[in-house]
Amino acid sequence: MGWKSSLAIKFHLGFWFYLVGGGAVYYYIEDPLYHLPPQPKTMTINATFCQHLVNLVENYIRNIVNVPLEPNDSTVRKKVTRDSCNDLTNSGKSEENGNHDVAWEFSSALFLCMTILTTIGYGCFSPNSSWGKVFCIFYGLIGIPICGILLANTSDYFSNGFLRLYKQRQSKQQRDKWHGIFIAAIIFLLPGLVVFFFIPAATFTYLEDWSYLDATYFSFVTLTTIGFGDIIAAQETNYPQLWLYRIGWIVWVMLGIAYWVTIISFITKALRSKRLRERWEKTSHAIS
Amino acid sequence: MGWKSSLAIKFHLGFWFYLVGGGAVYYYIEDPLYHLPPQPKTMTINATFCQHLVNLVENYIRNIVNVPLEPNDSTVRKKVTRDSCNDLTNSGKSEENGNHDVAWEFSSALFLCMTILTTIGYGCFSPNSSWGKVFCIFYGLIGIPICGILLANTSDYFSNGFLRLYKQRQSKQQRDKWHGIFIAAIIFLLPGLVVFFFIPAATFTYLEDWSYLDATYFSFVTLTTIGFGDIIAAQETNYPQLWLYRIGWIVWVMLGIAYWVTIISFITKALRSKRLRERWEKTSHAIS
Ligand SMILES: [K+]
Ligand SMILES: [K+]
Repeated sequence: MGWKSSLAIKFHLGFWFYLVGGGAVYYYIEDPLYHLPPQPKTMTINATFCQHLVNLVENYIRNIVNVPLEPNDSTVRKKVTRDSCNDLTNSGKSEENGNHDVAWEFSSALFLCMTILTTIGYGCFSPNSSWGKVFCIFYGLIGIPICGILLANTSDYFSNGFLRLYKQRQSKQQRDKWHGIFIAAIIFLLPGLVVFFFIPAATFTYLEDWSYLDATYFSFVTLTTIGFGDIIAAQETNYPQLWLYRIGWIVWVMLGIAYWVTIISFITKALRSKRLRERWEKTSHAIS
Repeated sequence: MGWKSSLAIKFHLGFWFYLVGGGAVYYYIEDPLYHLPPQPKTMTINATFCQHLVNLVENYIRNIVNVPLEPNDSTVRKKVTRDSCNDLTNSGKSEENGNHDVAWEFSSALFLCMTILTTIGYGCFSPNSSWGKVFCIFYGLIGIPICGILLANTSDYFSNGFLRLYKQRQSKQQRDKWHGIFIAAIIFLLPGLVVFFFIPAATFTYLEDWSYLDATYFSFVTLTTIGFGDIIAAQETNYPQLWLYRIGWIVWVMLGIAYWVTIISFITKALRSKRLRERWEKTSHAIS
């Protein structure tokens, strides 16, 4: 084994240690109660909401129990508004404490670190404590470049595979350069799209019970590192072997983003290529 | 003006047209009612929450109106649970329709497009309709590389400024290469940090009433394109001249990310540099 490949292996190992180490730090410094599992439906509570609640309470009192309230008892009204607001907030909290449905496992901390290093940043987990925020800055400052180098290396590996494929074809066939590149690009891109995009999307459709559009959209938003966080995989706390699902997600993300970087560099080269630029120039001259 | 710089200007103009065009598409295809302004406090509604609500209603009926309910009237209980759930959800909705507090302006659509193109993806705005999701995929597929080229060009511009500064210093002073680069890096990095990081963070502290740590954390999370979305600037719908604030955010993001890319490439070069690698090798040999 050469010095260079041995270094590459050390670099890869170093990255995984960095990831697990960051996960360990976050696992201990973050308050588990802040990181709650997602709920099927969210509502906002504010003053007007509470007013509605009070109206509701009054209606039930009137309609079900058939006892009218004094119409203008504003003090009682205010008190009820404030108390119901507090009670609801507290009941929500104690409930969450009660049923042990806290989502802050070690795999969640790993998930958080991975969303920092790849800059996906879904936001389902994000540092809440002050120290967590400070740590995020220093962790990312070193980790994001490391992750970037790793992704670039993997992407180079994919690109080299593509070039080898292209050269094999070129030696066999006629020497129409652009035609050859186009064919090779399709031959190379299609299996990659299937492996890193369509099969994962199908898997998410099955595992998460999403529509195929949602699963495709989620895959795209993840691999481009946009990470809106409107739909996120591997979040159901009652999922059997959630940690395995999350490790699968980590591996998919590393390979998939590298593949996306390969595609991006192809698109960038195409956009920057002299031939396309000249064509574009001609068109814009013809228009103006 | 040379051919190359004229092309660069066209490229920049093209990017802004692409951004505004995408904003126009999203502005029309998305349902404004889905994109609601952020609320100070969010709560989750589910079955157990509704159970709490019913208990609350019962307590108020008992304690305030002093009328006991039949203890085991489970049918009424169930009906109340279901109805209060529906009523609350509906009341929330009609409320949102009623007070015109919808956050979906044109500047919001621009904001959304910018979070796609830079891959920040806060998630405060994300496509909700099916067509919006499909459009996101095609819009990002072309737009993210374009934005990447633009950022790389701006970053090159910053890097060249740094190199010019470094060469000026080098010609004047002694030829200790690493010492010179280190000094130049600090001279270059400090003003950039102040302009793209500390001043924006101070501005956010002032405009958004955040702690300075939160503002710094937000700046870091934005410029690295992590974009957790736990705290987001320019979201208060009652802010005077919100659109101006958001345009300021767009300009800051474009320049700030380019600066971050410059720093990243320095860190990457340092991590990859032969000298550092050799040192690291020596250390790891000494340890093992
Ligand atoms: K992101
Ligand atoms: K994000």
